[in-house]
Amino acid sequence: MSERSTGDTGSKSAPILALVEETIGRELLDAEQILIEELSSSNPYVSDVLQHITRFRGKRLRPILLLLTAQAAGGIRHEHKVLAAVVEMIHLATLVHDDVLDDAETRRHVATVNARWNNETSVLFGDYLFTHSFHLASSLETTYGCRMIGRATNIVCEGELSQIKERGNLDLSEEAYFRIIDGKTAELTALCGQLGAHYAGAELAVVEALERYGRYLGLAFQIADDVLDLLGNERKTGKTLGSDIEKQKLTLPLIRLLNRASEADANAIRQLLLHPEENTREKLAPYFANSDALAYTQQRAQRLAQDARQQLDVLPATRARRILAEIADFAVQRTF
Amino acid sequence: MSERSTGDTGSKSAPILALVEETIGRELLDAEQILIEELSSSNPYVSDVLQHITRFRGKRLRPILLLLTAQAAGGIRHEHKVLAAVVEMIHLATLVHDDVLDDAETRRHVATVNARWNNETSVLFGDYLFTHSFHLASSLETTYGCRMIGRATNIVCEGELSQIKERGNLDLSEEAYFRIIDGKTAELTALCGQLGAHYAGAELAVVEALERYGRYLGLAFQIADDVLDLLGNERKTGKTLGSDIEKQKLTLPLIRLLNRASEADANAIRQLLLHPEENTREKLAPYFANSDALAYTQQRAQRLAQDARQQLDVLPATRARRILAEIADFAVQRTF
Repeated sequence: MSERSTGDTGSKSAPILALVEETIGRELLDAEQILIEELSSSNPYVSDVLQHITRFRGKRLRPILLLLTAQAAGGIRHEHKVLAAVVEMIHLATLVHDDVLDDAETRRHVATVNARWNNETSVLFGDYLFTHSFHLASSLETTYGCRMIGRATNIVCEGELSQIKERGNLDLSEEAYFRIIDGKTAELTALCGQLGAHYAGAELAVVEALERYGRYLGLAFQIADDVLDLLGNERKTGKTLGSDIEKQKLTLPLIRLLNRASEADANAIRQLLLHPEENTREKLAPYFANSDALAYTQQRAQRLAQDARQQLDVLPATRARRILAEIADFAVQRTF
Repeated sequence: MSERSTGDTGSKSAPILALVEETIGRELLDAEQILIEELSSSNPYVSDVLQHITRFRGKRLRPILLLLTAQAAGGIRHEHKVLAAVVEMIHLATLVHDDVLDDAETRRHVATVNARWNNETSVLFGDYLFTHSFHLASSLETTYGCRMIGRATNIVCEGELSQIKERGNLDLSEEAYFRIIDGKTAELTALCGQLGAHYAGAELAVVEALERYGRYLGLAFQIADDVLDLLGNERKTGKTLGSDIEKQKLTLPLIRLLNRASEADANAIRQLLLHPEENTREKLAPYFANSDALAYTQQRAQRLAQDARQQLDVLPATRARRILAEIADFAVQRTF
């Protein structure tokens, strides 16, 4: 979905990024190098598309999470760099397929694969990235990485399928919403924490805590992204917005808005959602102004960020741990 | 692509199937059971689609190849049954994505996922099957299976991407055609031979010979399928035909037809291919009648079947080996 976070942490994230750079800059570069080498093909067509999609890349949230949790949980090893490339590749695969599902035109100010080439190329190219990531994961010594990655990506797909099924359901419950984003977004960030800790040799309790950290963080990030899709600025975010409304996907702010509106207002809002137009976002604005929906959504996201931070208590006080805590704060503060 | 063989071996294959049943019937049933158990989901939507696609299943060419080569190369172990379920799942994933690429309406007399649900569901469901197959492969003890499967499926995607790129290229060479089908079809049948032999404990030379057997067989099968797409009967094959022409994908019979036609005929044929219509297949028939294209195509396929059979020389004379040889013959004799 275009509303899935690309992990773009924008200009406000500069202080965090500087800290990340200082702490795991070299390892991040190594992971980047692995990704670039893996994503090169002797087939000129494949190579063209590969070249193009590297321009989608955001601030590399998932590799950063994986490497930072590794650092915080015992130290970064070669496996972590490979796995950082793997999770980024999986993320790219989901973005390419999301864009074809959403008929999105741009991604990070760049034409999507479906817009630049066609839907067929997008579908196959997403498959190419998925299978490539699995192949790369299988270069590790044990099957642990493959198992965890296979399981998590499968859950991601199931989450996305549920989302498709619930499209147009204007009675979607908060619970169902959370189940969907837990699958489509949080499962992969949870995987980053889990793999980071496991391959650093951390004990099971730490692995589980960092998996939860990643999960709560992913949920908070996704909620923030859903708010952006409703209220964001296309120029700043660099992607097509309003696609949740266009695709009749209910997100937390809308669910709360409908739940708390008067019957008359709720009916009017439903009418707007049933017939999405270019300016539906603007038409919804007055309802949001009279509702606690945005404050409530923000509060839920903040609570999740706090839950994420709490998981870090199992770790010794290191710079990596401090940055992980800051990323949790940032996830819900960004407005772009 | 709808022209990718489903492995439907139809009624003429009855004697072979009876032999298969006798030889590896129990193991095939075990693999089937693993597939069914794996392809069950607590999510009712996912479960519905899963239920639906089991109706696409053909004669299980890939699991049969994997189990027969295992039997012929040393004996079937538990790993083979798991891997047989894995390759069938991958094959199903490619069929689901092929149908969305081809806008196909039916597959084995059943509505395709895109026709019954929508393109989004098809894309995600294919992803679901891909990731599930990798997860299942990672349940094995070593990473060998994951590595070989990751590599092969990646090559399959690259082959399909090349095919998309060459669509509309009416000057496609035979060499380019063979490169495409080697990727999109033969890589997976080669994988079946390789995995069958490797997990049976066969020595490297045998593993490589059975990989080649699978590759030649896959090429022969695909050529036969491409002929069917041109000349077949929709009722018998149970799928939408003529889609290669509709999608302007040049296959071996058409490449040969164009190469050997007079300039005037070649121009007329190109015009037909540039503006595909419902009855383009019929309009091409007189050109085929005056050409060696079909005989030549048949000859190429037969030669490949023979090459496949020759690879079996490394094996001791067993019933499994004999059936593998018969499958090679059958691959090019089927007309449905």
